[in-house]
Amino acid sequence: MRHVLALQCIHCGKQHDPGDVDYYCPLCGYHEGILDVLYDYEAVKAEMDPVTFSAGGPRSMWRYLPLLPVAEPERISHLQVGWTPLYRASRLAETLDVADCWVKDEGRNPTASFKDRASAVGVLKAMERGASRITCASTGNAASSLAGFAAAAGLPASIFVPKRAPEAKVAQLLVFGAQVFSVQGTYDQAWELCMAASSHFGWYNRNCAINAYLIEGKKTVALELVEQFRERGAFPDWVVVSVGDGCTIGGVWKGFKEMQRIGWIEKTPKILGVQAAGCQPFVTAWREGKRLTPCEADTLADSIAVGHPRNFVKGLRAVTESGGAYVAVPDQAILEAMTTLARKAAVFGEPAGATGVAGVQEARRQGIIGPDDVVAVIVTGNGLKDIASAIRAAGLPVPVDPALDAVRRVASP
Amino acid sequence: MRHVLALQCIHCGKQHDPGDVDYYCPLCGYHEGILDVLYDYEAVKAEMDPVTFSAGGPRSMWRYLPLLPVAEPERISHLQVGWTPLYRASRLAETLDVADCWVKDEGRNPTASFKDRASAVGVLKAMERGASRITCASTGNAASSLAGFAAAAGLPASIFVPKRAPEAKVAQLLVFGAQVFSVQGTYDQAWELCMAASSHFGWYNRNCAINAYLIEGKKTVALELVEQFRERGAFPDWVVVSVGDGCTIGGVWKGFKEMQRIGWIEKTPKILGVQAAGCQPFVTAWREGKRLTPCEADTLADSIAVGHPRNFVKGLRAVTESGGAYVAVPDQAILEAMTTLARKAAVFGEPAGATGVAGVQEARRQGIIGPDDVVAVIVTGNGLKDIASAIRAAGLPVPVDPALDAVRRVASP
Repeated sequence: MRHVLALQCIHCGKQHDPGDVDYYCPLCGYHEGILDVLYDYEAVKAEMDPVTFSAGGPRSMWRYLPLLPVAEPERISHLQVGWTPLYRASRLAETLDVADCWVKDEGRNPTASFKDRASAVGVLKAMERGASRITCASTGNAASSLAGFAAAAGLPASIFVPKRAPEAKVAQLLVFGAQVFSVQGTYDQAWELCMAASSHFGWYNRNCAINAYLIEGKKTVALELVEQFRERGAFPDWVVVSVGDGCTIGGVWKGFKEMQRIGWIEKTPKILGVQAAGCQPFVTAWREGKRLTPCEADTLADSIAVGHPRNFVKGLRAVTESGGAYVAVPDQAILEAMTTLARKAAVFGEPAGATGVAGVQEARRQGIIGPDDVVAVIVTGNGLKDIASAIRAAGLPVPVDPALDAVRRVASP
Repeated sequence: MRHVLALQCIHCGKQHDPGDVDYYCPLCGYHEGILDVLYDYEAVKAEMDPVTFSAGGPRSMWRYLPLLPVAEPERISHLQVGWTPLYRASRLAETLDVADCWVKDEGRNPTASFKDRASAVGVLKAMERGASRITCASTGNAASSLAGFAAAAGLPASIFVPKRAPEAKVAQLLVFGAQVFSVQGTYDQAWELCMAASSHFGWYNRNCAINAYLIEGKKTVALELVEQFRERGAFPDWVVVSVGDGCTIGGVWKGFKEMQRIGWIEKTPKILGVQAAGCQPFVTAWREGKRLTPCEADTLADSIAVGHPRNFVKGLRAVTESGGAYVAVPDQAILEAMTTLARKAAVFGEPAGATGVAGVQEARRQGIIGPDDVVAVIVTGNGLKDIASAIRAAGLPVPVDPALDAVRRVASP
């Protein structure tokens, strides 16, 4: 961690030595005491000069090593994570009525979601700490990416899932060899049990909200956007991302701020946070009073169905500091966005992945985004992760008898 | 098509001008008259010098443009296809008892399978021909990749599926906006109807066996392997691939032969073709008499469940010319290979994708592959494409009550 200066509590402001704390500020506890990794930005700048940097480095998130909290780079996974494609999607821009639209396809990561960036760092930190095992509570992308990166490192993983977890998502964890505990209770009980087990057994805890290092992996998507846009000679007015517990949008914003700080960009983009209408604590807080009111989660976009976001402060700051906005979109708009994204940009996203596209439409409707604006949408997960929703979004095939005449009667021109 | 000299019939040997024929040799018909694209290899060599080439070019299959049948490169899709990761998998090598094992993860392509390489070329050729629509008959990776690349190009697509096609696979086609005909009959009837419709409406036909250009896309995986191995200072004794209709293995072999011809490699690797025990026409032909006997297909590895392979000649030649071998593996071994591949190399493959790993085990057992051999396995598709098989392969989670004591009783050390 050559350039890491300290871990600073976002609640009390105290700076801790990385050797002294494991996860959160001991003074403020894990609900409030979320830490932020501080770097020596002058030293980083010397190694990441915008003019000379682009040519070299691996085509993965690890090209940004000077800005990552890595002590033992020789432990970096063989899995190629990050440096996902950035597509210019002109036909999508037309549909959304914006000047230009770019799509960052995070579904191309090793286990097919954005969360791989965080798990890559989480497993690496566990190895550096000499952990015997890594753990998390999740049935979603955090769990599958953890299982994949743990398998890559040969590090045992224990994952806590609620008993209602879909069989298919559990299967993926088991294929990677994780020990999966099916907790006979709610998701909250699975989460608390994971915390207790982590503490009792000394298992390394991969939970983005209480582990400051994971957001460092997430921010790399912003570093990449800055570099990829520089290559294309463009830059977005808005960066759009769906929001669950606030870690992802918080990471995105941290990445842009750091790139500004080391001289890559003069101006940061505005951040548009998009939530499902059935679960919009950030939207409510941003619109009405800036305080968190936890809610029930009722949306098919499971990856962002978080009624009690654990990284509320960072998630809200991303929008307020950037001069951005929060919007909410109904599930029907999310399903329609899945087909719009697939048909106009050829990217198949899971519901939470396509939510950003629906968010751009809503922000246009509200006049938040204008027709002359350039937007970049981060598609956070692959549509193959949730085939049930794809079936709901897709419509039906045309039945035909096996005869050319039958086709002639119904074929599109 | 700067360097394309002719399309040569593999049956009668006659060379055709690419402007004169659309799909197959008009003298031999589409069952026998499969064409091969011939290049001016001296001209190609001048543009693909092994010493100077590596530095430049896009990180996609299109870096090999001098060896591709492309007339209008400005029509190349925005989707980033090819240049997939090549991983060195030491723990997998140990398990397989070989000197070294490399994994080429084709599940990282845009629609998550190897078939994207072929569809990328197919859609491009359709656009060059000014086609109004492109068609195929399939429920598998060929169809989903066609739907994706057609969406990227804004080219309408019509896909014929048998009425028994799984809802989930059909949904993916519909999400991309393809018109999907559910043919009230068998797969063979769907295939014949597609051929008739293509001919009647003038729709461009994306069928690998009767369209010589598609295998040109497929061969790029071999070009990449040669270049990526050169970067790593290694080279495999065996390249291993699962086999259905013979187009993929035929493409792989063509790629290696061409790289030999233009001076990148002195010696080609041996090719190991792997089939499911429940559908092994190539294995039978190779072992017993070199003639094709079509069979029923009975295997869970649906992507290679082809009882009547349409590219038999090229598929058999790949093995005989390379000095390789064909082996068959039972479905149970394929399921076990899925977990072995995921746990030892952190790559989640669909059954046909993991079949190559089972094939290495079988070839070791038969003494075909030795303990000092270096193998490279092409994983042809992502495990997310077939969650039902993953569930069969994965085992079960451990039920626990929501209490630490319950975890303590069952947790791995």
